[in-house]
Amino acid sequence: MKVNQIGIIGTGNVATHLATGLYKAGLKIDFIHSRNEKEGKRLAKACSSEWVNIVPKSTNSAAVLFICTTDESIQVLIKKFSRSGYLLVHCSGSIALTKKGQGNQHYGVFYPIQSFSKTVPVDWSTTPICLEASNKESLTVLKSIATKLSKKVKVMDSADRLKVHLAAVFVNNFSNLQYIIAENLLKESHLSFDLLRPLILTTALKVQQNSAEQVQTGPARRKDLKSIRIHLNLLKEDPATQKIYRSLSNYLLHLF
Amino acid sequence: MKVNQIGIIGTGNVATHLATGLYKAGLKIDFIHSRNEKEGKRLAKACSSEWVNIVPKSTNSAAVLFICTTDESIQVLIKKFSRSGYLLVHCSGSIALTKKGQGNQHYGVFYPIQSFSKTVPVDWSTTPICLEASNKESLTVLKSIATKLSKKVKVMDSADRLKVHLAAVFVNNFSNLQYIIAENLLKESHLSFDLLRPLILTTALKVQQNSAEQVQTGPARRKDLKSIRIHLNLLKEDPATQKIYRSLSNYLLHLF
Repeated sequence: MKVNQIGIIGTGNVATHLATGLYKAGLKIDFIHSRNEKEGKRLAKACSSEWVNIVPKSTNSAAVLFICTTDESIQVLIKKFSRSGYLLVHCSGSIALTKKGQGNQHYGVFYPIQSFSKTVPVDWSTTPICLEASNKESLTVLKSIATKLSKKVKVMDSADRLKVHLAAVFVNNFSNLQYIIAENLLKESHLSFDLLRPLILTTALKVQQNSAEQVQTGPARRKDLKSIRIHLNLLKEDPATQKIYRSLSNYLLHLF
Repeated sequence: MKVNQIGIIGTGNVATHLATGLYKAGLKIDFIHSRNEKEGKRLAKACSSEWVNIVPKSTNSAAVLFICTTDESIQVLIKKFSRSGYLLVHCSGSIALTKKGQGNQHYGVFYPIQSFSKTVPVDWSTTPICLEASNKESLTVLKSIATKLSKKVKVMDSADRLKVHLAAVFVNNFSNLQYIIAENLLKESHLSFDLLRPLILTTALKVQQNSAEQVQTGPARRKDLKSIRIHLNLLKEDPATQKIYRSLSNYLLHLF
């Protein structure tokens, strides 16, 4: 199936990487729509598209409108465009698919399991993309787009997607919090975070081939209560961090 | 200064990577000593050395004996070899330097900030090595060895090293725990951990250039209490994991 029209709403991290990613994959982005004209024009330029103030009418049955905004705004925009004729697609892990629209309106979800920052390049080819759609034809349209970007396209219902989103919070947000805590601990002793950067990378590389449970190490893993006590004592001036250390260690002590 | 004799006690992860790393860096490993003969001979072969049942006498003032065993065993071996004449060096982040030995006995610490597994290759050149020694000459000997392995050699006292070790527990052990939790969440829904592996790598890559605080994202970072409630509800059958989610989110909510 040929996709004849692609529009993108938004200029944030996801919109930026989706627009430039699709463009590099050889797809034509017909328009970028955003409230912020300057940002919209910047992104439109980056993907040889044009910024539009008003979303144009859909020209065919395979016209796709990607809503790449905040979760709150997605809900509003899905309502706003609920008679637009576009296949309305959002990119959120936590918002369920709108299953039935008015008349012939169709909906889809295009959720890349990735962390996007405007300034950090993304490898789309290895980024898993979870798809869902309100009808078979829409799913086919989304598949034809997603497979141009990634080798890992998976059809997934909203319940499983929410589970993946929750799991992603652990590996992305909560891992990064461990980095923050470590960075701050080193700062107190005027030590550079550079000391830990290679270890952070090794830790992530190890689970690329292995199960995380297999490669767990550390005081709690080997039930080394003496080291745990020494560490807790080091954190006695910082009860919030001490609490995190204690609860994560307890979790590990019970796990193994 | 020329190092004329290097011996290594142990056959575990650190011993293996240290022995093979030093060998590849052009240093001669005079012997491997270990209780397990088979493992000792395996490692000796890998670094063109020989396994010895009894540690030979030190032949010169720059003879170094690396004690690469468990923390508990290190203490015992430091005592055992306290009149050996070797520069006695351990590789632990959490054991303080023995400052003064009997007679002319000297001590050192050679702590690589890295996570070692026998089967995963290690990039020694980027691995920070923290050094400490009981006298200036010993420090010079350790520097001459460490700089052959790594471009990041840092002299550090035991208090700072313990702080680094604590910080390493957060970025290594506690990040890996987040991966385990995510892996188990996906397993419950019969979803593959492969879905999260690229995200794990991106998360670690992002902080190679940036401060961890700068790149934090997620529900708690943007104070999205609605998503947090949805996630906590998803975890209601798993109170231990729910508790971790809650305490890490609370920490983030207070941090930003």
